[in-house]
Amino acid sequence: MSRDGKRKAPPAEPVAGTRKLWGGRFRQDTNPAVARFSASIDFDRALARYDLRLSTAHAEMLHAVGLLETEDLAALRRGLADIGAEIESGRFPFDSALEDIHMNIEARLRDRIGPAAGRLHTGRSRNDQVATDLLLYLRDAARAARAGLLDLQEVLLARAREHLDTVLPGYTHLQRAQPVRLAHHWLAFVEMFGRDEQRFRDLDARLARSPLGSGALAGSTLPLDREATARALGFAGPARNSMDAVASRDAGLEFLADGAIAQVHLSRLAEELVLWSTAEFGFIELADAYSTGSSLMPQKKNPDVPELVRGKAGRVIGNLVALLTVLKGLPLTYNRDLQEDKEPIFDTARTLRDSLEVMAGAIATLRVDTTRMREAASDPMLLATDLAETLVREGVPFREAHEAVGRIVGHCVEKDADLRSLSREDLRAFHPAFPAGGRELLSLERALESRAMPGATARPRVSEALDAADALLAAARRELAATP
Amino acid sequence: MSRDGKRKAPPAEPVAGTRKLWGGRFRQDTNPAVARFSASIDFDRALARYDLRLSTAHAEMLHAVGLLETEDLAALRRGLADIGAEIESGRFPFDSALEDIHMNIEARLRDRIGPAAGRLHTGRSRNDQVATDLLLYLRDAARAARAGLLDLQEVLLARAREHLDTVLPGYTHLQRAQPVRLAHHWLAFVEMFGRDEQRFRDLDARLARSPLGSGALAGSTLPLDREATARALGFAGPARNSMDAVASRDAGLEFLADGAIAQVHLSRLAEELVLWSTAEFGFIELADAYSTGSSLMPQKKNPDVPELVRGKAGRVIGNLVALLTVLKGLPLTYNRDLQEDKEPIFDTARTLRDSLEVMAGAIATLRVDTTRMREAASDPMLLATDLAETLVREGVPFREAHEAVGRIVGHCVEKDADLRSLSREDLRAFHPAFPAGGRELLSLERALESRAMPGATARPRVSEALDAADALLAAARRELAATP
Amino acid sequence: MSRDGKRKAPPAEPVAGTRKLWGGRFRQDTNPAVARFSASIDFDRALARYDLRLSTAHAEMLHAVGLLETEDLAALRRGLADIGAEIESGRFPFDSALEDIHMNIEARLRDRIGPAAGRLHTGRSRNDQVATDLLLYLRDAARAARAGLLDLQEVLLARAREHLDTVLPGYTHLQRAQPVRLAHHWLAFVEMFGRDEQRFRDLDARLARSPLGSGALAGSTLPLDREATARALGFAGPARNSMDAVASRDAGLEFLADGAIAQVHLSRLAEELVLWSTAEFGFIELADAYSTGSSLMPQKKNPDVPELVRGKAGRVIGNLVALLTVLKGLPLTYNRDLQEDKEPIFDTARTLRDSLEVMAGAIATLRVDTTRMREAASDPMLLATDLAETLVREGVPFREAHEAVGRIVGHCVEKDADLRSLSREDLRAFHPAFPAGGRELLSLERALESRAMPGATARPRVSEALDAADALLAAARRELAATP
Amino acid sequence: MSRDGKRKAPPAEPVAGTRKLWGGRFRQDTNPAVARFSASIDFDRALARYDLRLSTAHAEMLHAVGLLETEDLAALRRGLADIGAEIESGRFPFDSALEDIHMNIEARLRDRIGPAAGRLHTGRSRNDQVATDLLLYLRDAARAARAGLLDLQEVLLARAREHLDTVLPGYTHLQRAQPVRLAHHWLAFVEMFGRDEQRFRDLDARLARSPLGSGALAGSTLPLDREATARALGFAGPARNSMDAVASRDAGLEFLADGAIAQVHLSRLAEELVLWSTAEFGFIELADAYSTGSSLMPQKKNPDVPELVRGKAGRVIGNLVALLTVLKGLPLTYNRDLQEDKEPIFDTARTLRDSLEVMAGAIATLRVDTTRMREAASDPMLLATDLAETLVREGVPFREAHEAVGRIVGHCVEKDADLRSLSREDLRAFHPAFPAGGRELLSLERALESRAMPGATARPRVSEALDAADALLAAARRELAATP
Repeated sequence: MSRDGKRKAPPAEPVAGTRKLWGGRFRQDTNPAVARFSASIDFDRALARYDLRLSTAHAEMLHAVGLLETEDLAALRRGLADIGAEIESGRFPFDSALEDIHMNIEARLRDRIGPAAGRLHTGRSRNDQVATDLLLYLRDAARAARAGLLDLQEVLLARAREHLDTVLPGYTHLQRAQPVRLAHHWLAFVEMFGRDEQRFRDLDARLARSPLGSGALAGSTLPLDREATARALGFAGPARNSMDAVASRDAGLEFLADGAIAQVHLSRLAEELVLWSTAEFGFIELADAYSTGSSLMPQKKNPDVPELVRGKAGRVIGNLVALLTVLKGLPLTYNRDLQEDKEPIFDTARTLRDSLEVMAGAIATLRVDTTRMREAASDPMLLATDLAETLVREGVPFREAHEAVGRIVGHCVEKDADLRSLSREDLRAFHPAFPAGGRELLSLERALESRAMPGATARPRVSEALDAADALLAAARRELAATP
Repeated sequence: MSRDGKRKAPPAEPVAGTRKLWGGRFRQDTNPAVARFSASIDFDRALARYDLRLSTAHAEMLHAVGLLETEDLAALRRGLADIGAEIESGRFPFDSALEDIHMNIEARLRDRIGPAAGRLHTGRSRNDQVATDLLLYLRDAARAARAGLLDLQEVLLARAREHLDTVLPGYTHLQRAQPVRLAHHWLAFVEMFGRDEQRFRDLDARLARSPLGSGALAGSTLPLDREATARALGFAGPARNSMDAVASRDAGLEFLADGAIAQVHLSRLAEELVLWSTAEFGFIELADAYSTGSSLMPQKKNPDVPELVRGKAGRVIGNLVALLTVLKGLPLTYNRDLQEDKEPIFDTARTLRDSLEVMAGAIATLRVDTTRMREAASDPMLLATDLAETLVREGVPFREAHEAVGRIVGHCVEKDADLRSLSREDLRAFHPAFPAGGRELLSLERALESRAMPGATARPRVSEALDAADALLAAARRELAATP
Repeated sequence: MSRDGKRKAPPAEPVAGTRKLWGGRFRQDTNPAVARFSASIDFDRALARYDLRLSTAHAEMLHAVGLLETEDLAALRRGLADIGAEIESGRFPFDSALEDIHMNIEARLRDRIGPAAGRLHTGRSRNDQVATDLLLYLRDAARAARAGLLDLQEVLLARAREHLDTVLPGYTHLQRAQPVRLAHHWLAFVEMFGRDEQRFRDLDARLARSPLGSGALAGSTLPLDREATARALGFAGPARNSMDAVASRDAGLEFLADGAIAQVHLSRLAEELVLWSTAEFGFIELADAYSTGSSLMPQKKNPDVPELVRGKAGRVIGNLVALLTVLKGLPLTYNRDLQEDKEPIFDTARTLRDSLEVMAGAIATLRVDTTRMREAASDPMLLATDLAETLVREGVPFREAHEAVGRIVGHCVEKDADLRSLSREDLRAFHPAFPAGGRELLSLERALESRAMPGATARPRVSEALDAADALLAAARRELAATP
Repeated sequence: MSRDGKRKAPPAEPVAGTRKLWGGRFRQDTNPAVARFSASIDFDRALARYDLRLSTAHAEMLHAVGLLETEDLAALRRGLADIGAEIESGRFPFDSALEDIHMNIEARLRDRIGPAAGRLHTGRSRNDQVATDLLLYLRDAARAARAGLLDLQEVLLARAREHLDTVLPGYTHLQRAQPVRLAHHWLAFVEMFGRDEQRFRDLDARLARSPLGSGALAGSTLPLDREATARALGFAGPARNSMDAVASRDAGLEFLADGAIAQVHLSRLAEELVLWSTAEFGFIELADAYSTGSSLMPQKKNPDVPELVRGKAGRVIGNLVALLTVLKGLPLTYNRDLQEDKEPIFDTARTLRDSLEVMAGAIATLRVDTTRMREAASDPMLLATDLAETLVREGVPFREAHEAVGRIVGHCVEKDADLRSLSREDLRAFHPAFPAGGRELLSLERALESRAMPGATARPRVSEALDAADALLAAARRELAATP
């Protein structure tokens, strides 16, 4: 081998870099820029509680299979518990020279209990360790997301029930289309967040099997009991394939995708809060506690909370893209690229949880201007479809009815006339089949009540929908509580 | 209102644009550039079969509730069936002036059966219509994805079973790490594709409720029977909220996310096929029928199939990003932006289906060079962990054992010596606890067999894993077959 | 090598697949599914005109360096010209069995001129050929984007000039903030589209060097004249490195990024058109020719054009993500993954060009309701900052002035009072420094005119800005026209 | 207005939340969860140095136009300088209750210099302030990226020059294709990084105009001198339109896109370092200081640095997607969503800078195994194209020559024969035109040297390319140094 490459190289003698626990075969210490670049301790400390739980379970299993003396187990248990207390209280001395949370904990353990610490990593690799930690983290994060989604649904349902008789225009293309109840409108979001919650629940099936015991990629020559650690950590069982266990991150991808979909739903609700808070719509007013002022303009009261929630859809989509891109084209098994899984997952978990919380608060505390809503819904043009369906009931083909009413609308726009002001004769000039009394059929209340199929706007239907949603929510809460 | 804005405007008299079915209230025809820009018929024709099925169910329901005469129903049924035949045979005259598949079918229906065609759109909007079509499409697409994933798993399992005794290095960081069986390696992908299949199965819960009858956003004043059309189309029931039904696309997002994750898994398998086909690895040779030559270099045989499969992860991720971005910040209910849902969904469905098919073919027909694989796995350095675990069994803390073996490895690298050539005395110079006979423990076979926990490399474990995977696959096939 | 792998394999005898031009060393034909999967002719036909131009330049160079007889050159020229005419007229028989546009043209050439066609590919690979085609395509696409951006700027400028004296609220957080001129508002978009145009212009520097002559990756043993073909095709010169030339696609990435940024700007303008078209804002009305109706609701007039333009930001961002992901982690040089560069690039080019065109038309033809705009701008709360700055001119620290006016605003909100109705005494109750006549300073006109620094709302400033923008636009048009 | 909405609401009395500087009109304090959710101080502290520079320039301008007394200016200058020192030394008490860096600095200023601090925000909004800060940040970040790209190019050039005579296979489809010089191979990356550097340089044109003085969106009624602050901060002049200035973030998008493209190029180089470090390729060995070991396997030496660089392409693409998505569909002018611009920009700036640094170090210190490279390049199959071009020089159409050599290659593969072992008679059995001495033409050296056009592999060409690259690099360094 040609010896070359000294440009910008570290000196031949070991640089004053970092000596690593894996350093037996290495003659140079790690370059300091590399140490900084590759350290993950700044973010993977979020895994500390899971890593400690895992280490305890692992130590107990080592003892049970005869690879760890009783006194060593006691020392490890005590040391791990002490470290847990240090981390909880913020006194743990995180050291980026120790790369990651696993090495930080092991080094600290050595400080506290001495050489017995060196027995903990028996039959274990950081590869199976971090894969297990991540699944444990995802299990909690998915449950937190479900709880947040259920809370937001509960707030929406409560506000919807208050506003069973508040009427506003339903929009398509942001044009007023047909009148709806505010309860009906918000129930649409209850449906969306309900599906989001389902998705996080379904994810559990992909979080059920423990990687621990897969070692670096192929298991261990030691007689580890994978069933025992899996059970101790709340898994259904050990992962079926050791290489898959350390190489795969699709549970993380699924979490990021579920989170992105939920945050997109939040962004749609947020957009409406922003719109409805404008002077032009004037449908709602956010509470002061959920609004922000301007550093320059004293009159401003801004809907920063929904704006931020809407904007954060960007980061959450970005997080999903990041991990999909990381995984694309990676051969088996563990590659260091996988370290890039954590920050997007942690960020999405936190962003979603916080967004759900502040949106629930904003919804719970906003004031509804029911008068402005009803005024907006009272535009008679919103009854044009009903007029056409009047003709349909007389046997006119819908397409012909639509065309006739379209011409009536054009006439009203041109003459600046109210659709309801047209007499039967006026109407018959456009189509001979208009029945007597057809005009009386045109009213806001009738428009709502005559839409009486399941899922539509009639008061009994919406009332039933509220009850059904309450029942579904209660069932989902029970299911979440029952999840181990 | 100030009248202005004539720069670059269409002429005052109606341009020779397109007269639309919704044109009653409009005084100008659509600008031709706008007509081209907004037409979706070039891609939404993929929905034709679903739209026809929906229209038939809708017509039957209209008849059942008394909104359609028996002879009109007969005419509609006949017309829709004829159009279906035209489309299947490629004779349907698609017309981009008619915007979309729905209007194309309605216009064609009018040509064929006359004014009765105008009764079909009774109580229906394109909003609920297209939302329903899309769920029907997704149902088929999800099932096709599941079938493709099951087929690929079957091929992998069959090849894995052939290669239960083929040994190759398992890699971490693309460095040889520990020996594994090729069966074990490919079973890792069986696990991944198994989870992918689960995800598409879980999606069914979000495809279970029919939007039809939601109208534009608020239902209809006509006495539609939503339960009947839902049942006729194979749904569990009608959507619970009409606004959600026409405004939401999260089932599409979930499909795109599931597809992206599966394609990323395919890209990882593809990367390995590319690597293993190199002269440097030389582990496999793709069949000629799954390879491509060079237009310039006569000697080339290129792994284009896995390269394309890997590359197509890009488009599939892009499709997911596209729809997430479209939906971000959209207020309720239908907005025309939603038209952008179709192309990414159709493209991902087709890309995934084709990728699964060609990968199954490539795997089924490749040759394995078992000799090259075993040679690569015979590097004694792959046994270093086993050597360290020998010390652990003598009671040495793992960390100390790792350090000692690390120094042994460094010694071997420096001296260009074989790990297995060291005598007990040599070994004891590095650590006194090396037992007699320790050296004999170092062998490829022993390395494989001593990893005997569930999910690891011992022959009985891998053999059991093959049987278990066969059983899971058979169960998944039965479940797919039983899906309505 | 162990011979195995017959499951799902093609039969041993050559399948009835496709015989390829590169097939000399192959014993099996390509599997039909693979042929379909890998064919690009459905989309790369968009390169036909560039491929023909390239082939003509290449043939002329081959003749000039003595590698092609005069009569062969004549035959090739004639054949290529004929094929060009066939493609233009839509009579070219594209054949997906021939993989791509290059092979389609070569095969057709053979049909037309016989064996001389086989001399065209001398010293050329599809690798350098397609890289060159793509740069030629990007050159045209970048220029079309620039032209479209200039056209839209011109429309915006013309409408802005009409509306120099139209006043509307400027918004922050979609809350009315301070009054602005509509001309000023639209000039903001002229700035954005101006930077977009600059970006496409800067891209030219990355399109300046011809890959042709780089062969598959390393050039050719034949005495090709790369300078000659580069000049003939309008490049500044040949690419400096043959491996970079065939392996790189960053010019395509840059085009996709420039396109995504421009489309995001379009989506912001589109969002405003949608908002301003609502009943609630009522600031504008789109022309009928740029609007669409509803299949169900006869009264609807929907802003489909801006909605689609906004939605198409999704696909354009998705296209960028797709190609970034494709390129991530690809080793040198050409890999088949690169085939995935074309569809996103073609799609973004077409989407951006069309979006620019329809937005220019929509802007040119919309009506402005200057009355509604002025009413909205007349909210006295929009003058709160001016009131605070009145105090600043009296020497009050801004923060103190802001706090005082904030309290005044709170008072007015509570009492539902007009800010301008407060007497000097009223004001002095909040801060003693309010000057006499301070109240008179509060007017819409004064608010506009007193903002008299460059880039602000005073009439002379906006008028100057219109002139400056005209001049910049004219200069950009000249520069575009002068681009070779 | 109906008063409602108390569910989950804060109590009626002001919660113990945060009193804000803009709080004049507010009756409730900010909800604590909202305060946490919306605070940006955890990340926007990266703007501190720019904010202080801006504030100093703004204060000096206020003084120059008569809006600030001399002693107040002195106090502000002193206070800002002290705060700068506190921040540099890590002693600044960042307070998340104060929302962002701007409010933190203003509050701290008030602590230090009293009420004069309240004069600093005169005529200024956080909207123009943060837009200006961000451009200043981007200016530095773009220059750091350029410097890092130039450093990496320099290292690559130096290593390339060392390896002018090192030969390895050039690859297409990761199959050995034709021999190239390692210098030529690495020069391909010098070209890519050169274009990346150009892109960051072109960005300067979009960073040239100062938003400061645009106020919240419309300027100020105070006589601010925007030219003066622009010049003081190193801008070419003030932004031309105040609304564009506060609403736009396309310079940030362009930075993120340029960064993503550069990181994708890094990922390609990283992929090669990973591949070349494998036992199978064995072309290079990374220095110990740029490698990492395994916590389990004592023999492992892993290429973590290039793996991380490759993986980080994911986050950098994710950052770009995040901001594109945030901006999509936002109406003018400032919306709080824009706060989401900072984290992706800061993260990409840091990731790219660090990746460039560690890759330069890794390249500088790696060892090249020139023997393994040459062996791999000596595969006679790599000369097949040359053999075909031998026939072309005899007047055989290329396509015919390719077919003949393809059959020869097939023959050699079947017989396991060396291409160079065939006699003239053997060759003539495949094509009669093979000249005498044709076989002698087949050699590695001849293959390299006969590719003698610009940009190809002949030694003089590569040597010239090295000199040209040196000159370009020196010119780029001069240009960067001259950038103000």
